[in-house]
Amino acid sequence: MILTKGKKIQVLQDGHVTSPKGFSAGGVHCGLRKTKLDFGWIHSEVPACAAGVYTLNAFQAAPLKVTKNSLEKDDQLQTIVVNSGNANSFTGTQGYQDALKMQQLAAEKLKVEVDNVAVASTGVIGELLPMENIEAGIQSIGDSNHLSPEKFEQSILTTDTITKHVAVQIEIDGKTITIGGAAKGSGMIHPNMATMLGFITTDAAVEAQSLQKALRSITDCSFNMITVDGDSSTNDMVLVLANGMKENHLLTENHADWMRFVEALKFVSEELAKQIAKDGEGATKLIEVNTTGAPSETAAKQVAKAVISSNLVKTAIYGADPNWGRIICAVGYSEQPINTDKISISLGEIEVVHHGQVVNFNEHEASQYLQADAVIINVHMQDGMYQATAWGCDLTYDYVKINASYRT
Amino acid sequence: MILTKGKKIQVLQDGHVTSPKGFSAGGVHCGLRKTKLDFGWIHSEVPACAAGVYTLNAFQAAPLKVTKNSLEKDDQLQTIVVNSGNANSFTGTQGYQDALKMQQLAAEKLKVEVDNVAVASTGVIGELLPMENIEAGIQSIGDSNHLSPEKFEQSILTTDTITKHVAVQIEIDGKTITIGGAAKGSGMIHPNMATMLGFITTDAAVEAQSLQKALRSITDCSFNMITVDGDSSTNDMVLVLANGMKENHLLTENHADWMRFVEALKFVSEELAKQIAKDGEGATKLIEVNTTGAPSETAAKQVAKAVISSNLVKTAIYGADPNWGRIICAVGYSEQPINTDKISISLGEIEVVHHGQVVNFNEHEASQYLQADAVIINVHMQDGMYQATAWGCDLTYDYVKINASYRT
Repeated sequence: MILTKGKKIQVLQDGHVTSPKGFSAGGVHCGLRKTKLDFGWIHSEVPACAAGVYTLNAFQAAPLKVTKNSLEKDDQLQTIVVNSGNANSFTGTQGYQDALKMQQLAAEKLKVEVDNVAVASTGVIGELLPMENIEAGIQSIGDSNHLSPEKFEQSILTTDTITKHVAVQIEIDGKTITIGGAAKGSGMIHPNMATMLGFITTDAAVEAQSLQKALRSITDCSFNMITVDGDSSTNDMVLVLANGMKENHLLTENHADWMRFVEALKFVSEELAKQIAKDGEGATKLIEVNTTGAPSETAAKQVAKAVISSNLVKTAIYGADPNWGRIICAVGYSEQPINTDKISISLGEIEVVHHGQVVNFNEHEASQYLQADAVIINVHMQDGMYQATAWGCDLTYDYVKINASYRT
Repeated sequence: MILTKGKKIQVLQDGHVTSPKGFSAGGVHCGLRKTKLDFGWIHSEVPACAAGVYTLNAFQAAPLKVTKNSLEKDDQLQTIVVNSGNANSFTGTQGYQDALKMQQLAAEKLKVEVDNVAVASTGVIGELLPMENIEAGIQSIGDSNHLSPEKFEQSILTTDTITKHVAVQIEIDGKTITIGGAAKGSGMIHPNMATMLGFITTDAAVEAQSLQKALRSITDCSFNMITVDGDSSTNDMVLVLANGMKENHLLTENHADWMRFVEALKFVSEELAKQIAKDGEGATKLIEVNTTGAPSETAAKQVAKAVISSNLVKTAIYGADPNWGRIICAVGYSEQPINTDKISISLGEIEVVHHGQVVNFNEHEASQYLQADAVIINVHMQDGMYQATAWGCDLTYDYVKINASYRT
């Protein structure tokens, strides 16, 4: 079955990073975690044009530095190796050497250029990477028993409860181009923070600078618009690999189908972002906040983020409480210019504030609506033409439980 | 008994807004809440020089607008009337008229200039103020049965669990000057947000512009440095009244004892702020974050705020988990320049990170420390000369419980 989004983007029912031509992926248990898979890889038959975005946290983990340096040399990657269980963050010079070693060993095993290997880690911070286990993981790459995109998706998880993956197809130059993605999200692993990792693959041929520019702009309205608890980690990273195996005319910003490609890449990013938000720690539902009619892009984004990040809104949604006052309050402290007499707010289709006035809405109906798995809050500013969407989840007892437990 | 802070500021054991000469206060039940006191007042025998700071939330409630307008006319106030149970926020033109009426009735009852009356409200938003109840409250002002600073402190609470009050004394021009304060804090009242109200009184004679300047600067490092859940309400306000009844030489920035006065005012503000933070919804402990050695005042404040606002840090402290990784992470995403090789972090006296390296500290001892009622996190940036302190509380099951309950 093929689901359809609009006419141009087709969503594959069971899409993965291996859906695009020429990509393989796998995962194994190498002993960093008790029993769960903890080492994974993605590999392209040929070197791929690549782009990356990295955490803005001042404490950037070693693997991000190594990957960024390598990628910047020639804008190419062929292999990504990832471990969970240990973030190789706050590990000093030794940690940096370990990340380099991990990269080098993977390059030797797969016979690719060292600089074409990206490394990523997620898990405990402040502890050195057990390199014997990493080496064992790398040696497993050749074994076909471990080849499986599902195994890859599992191997990068920490306290995530589900794997995150998607793939779509579009037509470019009369050829069917596939874009696939996998991610890990909001799981917290002691003593640590939620690391977000996103890996996107495509068999399209894309020019490097255009790809980097597109990824940056798309990240700003997808991965950067989700919040579980507002904390951004030392290890967040999103990589895109475009291996060109579908032999389309090189996609640049001047290509007639460029926007279609960007839309598809954006769809994949948003889908992964939503899957991450919905699987937030302790979350029972996905919350989507749409700002429309904002006077600027910044205002649109900041208002959406203020609402989605509000603990009071998050707890109200958990309690299925149509508490428009908390939404208004968050809009009000977003530090953006707010035309208070024009603003309207709705929960799904149920308007609760109209042009700055409280609506006499049906509270029971609104509460019913908030009991769904996915809840939409619309903030119509009616003060401009910009819009933005942010995603998050409710704040629950389980969030406190997961994060207050003493590390054992 | 008189407690002493340094040699210059004496803390009264049972200090209130009525400790300074010439101030009276009281509180009654006027029917806005079921049984609890819900209407209170502070009154000075003579008009007092006054200063105010107000929420930056774009949706500023009616009483704040009325108070601000009146205060700006002549920098004087003589009376403050406050109700809880209803915030008179998001109530449109009628709400504004009601706030004006509340002001006018109080002025008539107490025979003071209308513009010398401040009005404040806290509670449910989006509902009109029941003016009959307010009128009944105002009529009670003359009754000596209701005169009591404790009753005033109770009357302004919402879901706060304790009253907040303090008073200190200092010598100015050989005279004993008293500064008293009361506040309400982090209680949430459905369907609403945490409103912070602070009222400070003194019998010192202070020049208006200097007082306003001092209040602004002190607020930035006291009331503005606390966080319970990061949400700032439509009704937050802090007022200072200086009635001059101790007949000191007018305090201005040029007075030899000016800094002593400012220090005392700051002490009162910080003390109220801490009492508010500690009584955060569901909180079991006060958290204090000290940033030292920051390269700028902004950096010092932002780093302290990032740590105190982190849900991950707040839940870790609740769980008595010495999770330095979450603290480092919050420092890292504070959007301030961080010299990652210089930073040191300690939990009380227990150093957990030293010059950017993890310390092999005693986890059991650290966890023991975190079980105290008040916990201090020190972030030494060693990259400059600025410092800041922020206060907050832990994030608990009860926070979720209080805020996720459906409004009934």
